[in-house]
Amino acid sequence: MQIDIGKNIEDMSMQIIEKEIGKHQYTGSEWAIVKRVIHTTADFDFAKKNKIIFHQTAIQNGINALKIGCELVVDVNGVIGGLHKKNLIDFKVNVICNISNTMVRDKAKKYNKTISQMSMRESIMHMNDGIIAIGNAPTALIEVVKMCNEKVIKPKLIVGIPVGFISATESKEMLRKSKVPFITNAGRKGGSACAAAIINALFRLMM
Amino acid sequence: MQIDIGKNIEDMSMQIIEKEIGKHQYTGSEWAIVKRVIHTTADFDFAKKNKIIFHQTAIQNGINALKIGCELVVDVNGVIGGLHKKNLIDFKVNVICNISNTMVRDKAKKYNKTISQMSMRESIMHMNDGIIAIGNAPTALIEVVKMCNEKVIKPKLIVGIPVGFISATESKEMLRKSKVPFITNAGRKGGSACAAAIINALFRLMM
Repeated sequence: MQIDIGKNIEDMSMQIIEKEIGKHQYTGSEWAIVKRVIHTTADFDFAKKNKIIFHQTAIQNGINALKIGCELVVDVNGVIGGLHKKNLIDFKVNVICNISNTMVRDKAKKYNKTISQMSMRESIMHMNDGIIAIGNAPTALIEVVKMCNEKVIKPKLIVGIPVGFISATESKEMLRKSKVPFITNAGRKGGSACAAAIINALFRLMM
Repeated sequence: MQIDIGKNIEDMSMQIIEKEIGKHQYTGSEWAIVKRVIHTTADFDFAKKNKIIFHQTAIQNGINALKIGCELVVDVNGVIGGLHKKNLIDFKVNVICNISNTMVRDKAKKYNKTISQMSMRESIMHMNDGIIAIGNAPTALIEVVKMCNEKVIKPKLIVGIPVGFISATESKEMLRKSKVPFITNAGRKGGSACAAAIINALFRLMM
């Protein structure tokens, strides 16, 4: 019999997480997402109450959007690296990342913005009814929340889990206060692997 | 005056890390690397004594290899996503990642190995005098340590910081016991962003 060793390792890892965490405060589908972030980071901090925070329609919105092959705008290539490619192909989800676009770099310099901010502005036409996943740059998250508040864009979901010491915590607070469906976390932690894990978990939830 | 906001944010982040961590047990060049891992993860755990572990010639070996444009074999695309592309271009460092190679997937199935293991075997010809950076798969790290122990390959440095619940800790212990110069950590934590941060820090150290 052919065994998928990789799959086996993943299943065993999830069992260890379940066992060591024990009781938690998340709902079933929330926990499926939180568990995948922990699997990606080996950081049990994410299991604490209200460490990962879900807007009430976020999970369903995310699933519905992915199911019909929405566009997915990400802030850095690291998020793309962590995404399960087969899901993207199967559901015809197009991923957009403008961070390495040289034109974006030139514009950022010209307008005295961060490259991350400018790359979000450059991706505007892909954001309506799409998903935006920010794993690295707080300034990228602040920019998209501003665009939502100004009604420039209307995404179905923002996954906002940038990491860092300057503005990361604040950018996530801004996201929580906005009216756009979100999945985010409290505090400085996060990262592109976390953002990718959340998207991967949403795909799983629809299967 | 034109200000590089991104650079400014990074400098301020580093100052916060310095201030909040205070005293630590690392040497100057070790700390430059550890600090960059903390900057990437916002996880102060990495500052603890012996959390990140350095073979005595690892840093110098890594710098020397990158300086002359060595090859860099990585286990997942997420590591590539986190690397500063300008450094790679400036120093003509060629990055190899075979994880998405369909031939590797077929071979892994045939020989009942993980895709990560097989992708390392597939990259053998790039490993001598090169750097290997593993941020995701313990099985990839185990495979390269085995190849070193069997004298099949002789890399200048292995950065082994895979994350996970099955074999991650053990794979890093194996690496520490081998004779190849290494940078690794103790425990389950790690990730592709950490592996990339270490390589980025090595580039910085040579400037």
